[in-house]
Amino acid sequence: MRKKIKVGIIGAGRIGKMHTENIVNNFKSVEVTSIADLKYDEIKDWAHGLGIKNVYQDYHDILNDPEIEAILIFSSTNSHSVITIDAAKAGKDIFCEKPIDYDLDRIYAALDAVKKAGVKFQVGFNRRFDHNNIAVKKLIEEGKIGDVHIIKIVARDPEPPSIEYVKGSGGMILDMTIHDFDLMSYLSGSDVEEVYTQAAVLVDPAIGQAGDIDTALITLKFKNGAIGVIDNSRKAVYGYDQRVEVFGSKGGITTSNDTDSSAVLSTVDGVISEKPKYFFLQRYKDSFITELKGFFDAIEYDKEILVTGEDGLKPILIALAAMKSMKESRPIKIGQ
Amino acid sequence: MRKKIKVGIIGAGRIGKMHTENIVNNFKSVEVTSIADLKYDEIKDWAHGLGIKNVYQDYHDILNDPEIEAILIFSSTNSHSVITIDAAKAGKDIFCEKPIDYDLDRIYAALDAVKKAGVKFQVGFNRRFDHNNIAVKKLIEEGKIGDVHIIKIVARDPEPPSIEYVKGSGGMILDMTIHDFDLMSYLSGSDVEEVYTQAAVLVDPAIGQAGDIDTALITLKFKNGAIGVIDNSRKAVYGYDQRVEVFGSKGGITTSNDTDSSAVLSTVDGVISEKPKYFFLQRYKDSFITELKGFFDAIEYDKEILVTGEDGLKPILIALAAMKSMKESRPIKIGQ
Amino acid sequence: MRKKIKVGIIGAGRIGKMHTENIVNNFKSVEVTSIADLKYDEIKDWAHGLGIKNVYQDYHDILNDPEIEAILIFSSTNSHSVITIDAAKAGKDIFCEKPIDYDLDRIYAALDAVKKAGVKFQVGFNRRFDHNNIAVKKLIEEGKIGDVHIIKIVARDPEPPSIEYVKGSGGMILDMTIHDFDLMSYLSGSDVEEVYTQAAVLVDPAIGQAGDIDTALITLKFKNGAIGVIDNSRKAVYGYDQRVEVFGSKGGITTSNDTDSSAVLSTVDGVISEKPKYFFLQRYKDSFITELKGFFDAIEYDKEILVTGEDGLKPILIALAAMKSMKESRPIKIGQ
Amino acid sequence: MRKKIKVGIIGAGRIGKMHTENIVNNFKSVEVTSIADLKYDEIKDWAHGLGIKNVYQDYHDILNDPEIEAILIFSSTNSHSVITIDAAKAGKDIFCEKPIDYDLDRIYAALDAVKKAGVKFQVGFNRRFDHNNIAVKKLIEEGKIGDVHIIKIVARDPEPPSIEYVKGSGGMILDMTIHDFDLMSYLSGSDVEEVYTQAAVLVDPAIGQAGDIDTALITLKFKNGAIGVIDNSRKAVYGYDQRVEVFGSKGGITTSNDTDSSAVLSTVDGVISEKPKYFFLQRYKDSFITELKGFFDAIEYDKEILVTGEDGLKPILIALAAMKSMKESRPIKIGQ
Repeated sequence: MRKKIKVGIIGAGRIGKMHTENIVNNFKSVEVTSIADLKYDEIKDWAHGLGIKNVYQDYHDILNDPEIEAILIFSSTNSHSVITIDAAKAGKDIFCEKPIDYDLDRIYAALDAVKKAGVKFQVGFNRRFDHNNIAVKKLIEEGKIGDVHIIKIVARDPEPPSIEYVKGSGGMILDMTIHDFDLMSYLSGSDVEEVYTQAAVLVDPAIGQAGDIDTALITLKFKNGAIGVIDNSRKAVYGYDQRVEVFGSKGGITTSNDTDSSAVLSTVDGVISEKPKYFFLQRYKDSFITELKGFFDAIEYDKEILVTGEDGLKPILIALAAMKSMKESRPIKIGQ
Repeated sequence: MRKKIKVGIIGAGRIGKMHTENIVNNFKSVEVTSIADLKYDEIKDWAHGLGIKNVYQDYHDILNDPEIEAILIFSSTNSHSVITIDAAKAGKDIFCEKPIDYDLDRIYAALDAVKKAGVKFQVGFNRRFDHNNIAVKKLIEEGKIGDVHIIKIVARDPEPPSIEYVKGSGGMILDMTIHDFDLMSYLSGSDVEEVYTQAAVLVDPAIGQAGDIDTALITLKFKNGAIGVIDNSRKAVYGYDQRVEVFGSKGGITTSNDTDSSAVLSTVDGVISEKPKYFFLQRYKDSFITELKGFFDAIEYDKEILVTGEDGLKPILIALAAMKSMKESRPIKIGQ
Repeated sequence: MRKKIKVGIIGAGRIGKMHTENIVNNFKSVEVTSIADLKYDEIKDWAHGLGIKNVYQDYHDILNDPEIEAILIFSSTNSHSVITIDAAKAGKDIFCEKPIDYDLDRIYAALDAVKKAGVKFQVGFNRRFDHNNIAVKKLIEEGKIGDVHIIKIVARDPEPPSIEYVKGSGGMILDMTIHDFDLMSYLSGSDVEEVYTQAAVLVDPAIGQAGDIDTALITLKFKNGAIGVIDNSRKAVYGYDQRVEVFGSKGGITTSNDTDSSAVLSTVDGVISEKPKYFFLQRYKDSFITELKGFFDAIEYDKEILVTGEDGLKPILIALAAMKSMKESRPIKIGQ
Repeated sequence: MRKKIKVGIIGAGRIGKMHTENIVNNFKSVEVTSIADLKYDEIKDWAHGLGIKNVYQDYHDILNDPEIEAILIFSSTNSHSVITIDAAKAGKDIFCEKPIDYDLDRIYAALDAVKKAGVKFQVGFNRRFDHNNIAVKKLIEEGKIGDVHIIKIVARDPEPPSIEYVKGSGGMILDMTIHDFDLMSYLSGSDVEEVYTQAAVLVDPAIGQAGDIDTALITLKFKNGAIGVIDNSRKAVYGYDQRVEVFGSKGGITTSNDTDSSAVLSTVDGVISEKPKYFFLQRYKDSFITELKGFFDAIEYDKEILVTGEDGLKPILIALAAMKSMKESRPIKIGQ
């Protein structure tokens, strides 16, 4: 048996902490030997408590450690591409939380560095690893619905982020819809060719004043002829609404929301089921582990990476087109 | 084409009126020429308004009319067997609302009269004609679930009848469960051999004081080896709960309640579907028409009757055994 | 009590026959005294069999009959506006199958004639009267979901019409989507302001060769700020797929397809429910009766018409914009 | 913070291994320092691989270790009570896989030893910790359905065990239904007073020849007046069927089966959902962890044990009565 994969983690905010604990608790073949975060003082005790030996402020300390085989980047978005380039140069395999960057030149630079270094590179589009989406993809690949004609995603958050967050988010499309663009491409088995955005500010006028939108229907046209639509809202009062529908020449597939239990209560007030699981940490809990399993398996058994750098680029290109479509009120071809 | 079937109706209470209107509105090949009810004055205008020519107080006036081919008995239960005998002697085909009677000797006398006269005789177990039950029966007959192992019926009323009604009803088992006994026999394709009743008074102590029960689980053993259980309550606050489950060697079938619409409302309070249709008049609306179609088709095309006198006898025998089981707290063989 | 409403029917093709039988069988306060169809010979026996006294070839014979209070137009689309004008001039109340016409000038002329004559005029958008859509509308009006943000309709036919039919249909949008445009407007409680059509030929290339499309996602923007999308296909192999979703500030509503029964079969192959009811005649059976009830009630009790001429015009305006959007690949404002 | 709870595990067959891995992977506050199994050679490597230091053949080696605070008994059923007594005498807190024993005297001796030693003692009825059952219990305790009137459990295995297993199992009721007896008592909030068993051999005659049954409907009467029924089969071809229904004065609760995904496929063949999760290891996966969490929390924070020795005794008493009922074809009072 191969010896343990020694990994270093860069960035230990909310998401970084979740991933770190997932790795420590679920992967016996992986050892987290080091972690780095700008707020070194705030994570030190938590990291040592998990049995992580080295806690740094400067991520270069991790890259300089020759024992470390792979690094996982969970730092803030604007540092993803820089760290990716540095890590690639250091010859480390890389897992990078989505998105790679919002700037195309920086993305291309990162992808180029990865290619030159010949290291493995996975982008954190976790929804591909969700149990429902896996089932949908499998049914499509088995030919159960024939050729894909229409793909639809509903993705509504339970509540909008703070206005401060909105201002720094790059906008709802880059922040939220980007997941749906990736899933659309993945499920369609084709690339998006054109996009049209019908957007609105209906949840909170303050979001509009901050220059963003909170509600959108984004229509997509795929190279294989299929068409699709994404339905986004920043606020579904009943919880995190995450559904997929794919319709084809031989049938259709739908998924419904996950709930904590299947208990249904019938009273004078009606027949009441549970609301969807609250938000992404609850809903996609297992997918965050499954995506890491894919990454570590790719290293351990030298298998293909399941979400490549190219896959990480595409949703950005679609998002930029969708934003341009919104601004110019017309359909936009991807990459124009 | 055959000329219209002229029919006479005996008994125009709530159920009789419903059936009469169903016949007038849905069967072009049938003409209701006469109707009789003890409360002649109360139904006269209603009957004439429906285009029924002859309205009588004495049902013999109908039986004496040679033009009338078939009669439908919707009078009070204690008159069913007597009128059946009279109608059989008059050579009329007969549709008799369930039950034929609660007294076995009177039932045997009625069945005997029918047999001697060679007339058609259908008993009003309408639930066999319900769209869900038809689908269940069809799947069983197609062999989709193989041999039947377990049959289960849930039958809960939305509210108990008046205590006055309870006192004259013959008890919940004869009044309410009798439908389930028929459906059980029908779906199983076998006869009930033994029954055990676990009953309780949980809805209203006044029902217990009136000598009846309001909640029961009745276990049945069939001659073909299958077993079953009926779940009855006089009060399901969420509405009329009518479900069937059949489990067999190759699979299982379940049905769920009918609702007015499929609309599902998601709010902060939960995911809310509609309650079941309110009571039997709403839930089994179409089945009351379909059972009559079976009767009139049997006359028009000389086909087999779908719920025979024998079928009408069996649930009474099971009910009597179930009541004995309740009284003696032990399983009882049918017909003992 | 008011005396019976005497009505004449113009057009007795498949749809006309269905409506006629619905009226004869369900409305005791209505008497169909006359019917007219160009193919007089083909409908004569059928009409007399229903008890309709007068059968004409020329619809003017109906309009000239002073006893007739209302007429129902089920003739071919291109005659709707002309007959409406004639009937309005004759002072008859009018039920006109959808659409009023495909030509705006002819529609305006018809609406003008109706207005001048002061007669009642209802257009046959039956889906407003569907039990599921009624439930959705009621929940919206009760404020259960707050302000409407997103409306979605899935409307997929079980199989495409013949190429011959396609050629004469005016195109899928005018032929099929028009129902969805009406339902969208109705449920939103607002008017459509702008529309964008993303269309494709995916079901059958012959449809494309005939100049039509068979698959579409049509995005709509409403005057009240809401947005919506219609999802159409000419061929859903599993049956007639008719679903609605409305999402708002306080919750969401979804409907699912109607089936013949709720029976669910579990076997080694999976857990299998029934397919949707086959096509519109099955699925919207009751709504065809309910819309007529609305019309006859409006006459009998002098109530408001529920689908006015104005309501009949709007979907045409949206359809014309949607077709222009498809041709010019850009969003189009309604009425431009 | 308290130091880690050092535990020893006795018995490492299939179930013991699953539990051991669950503890090692999920409880940071717990350290498995020792494990014992008669087949020492077969588990040694597996145990060391998990980081367990001491691997014994004789479980007394664990009991003699003063560092060990708690032991978990996963050995064969006939050793449960003996080891419990030994462990209690050694002053260890005890988690004992269900059942404590099939012999009442041995159970009483074990409970007595536990009581005298004053140690904590939890029995492994994991289904109380299942997410669906937790939701049902919570709704009942919140008073959402008022007083409980009827409780129903469906528990059907996907396939029968080997005939060899059947012969040594104590019979289906002791082997399988015992879980349902516990869940029934737990959900009802009352004790079972009387039981009636309607059993059959329908799945495989060889099971009958081995002196056992494979299909049963077991009716129960509770001290608080409620009634219930358990529906068991050794073979549901569509998978592990595990559903609960509780009906009360203010409403009802139902649960449905868990599946791997919510994907629903619609084709010409029907609308197809996934089958239930295959068997108990898949279906109750999380509950096996949650029950241990309860045990370790009880030790760490000195809280109440959630499934006590008394709770472990009751289902045995009910099972013995149910078996007597089957043999004597009559209802049997518990403890007679």
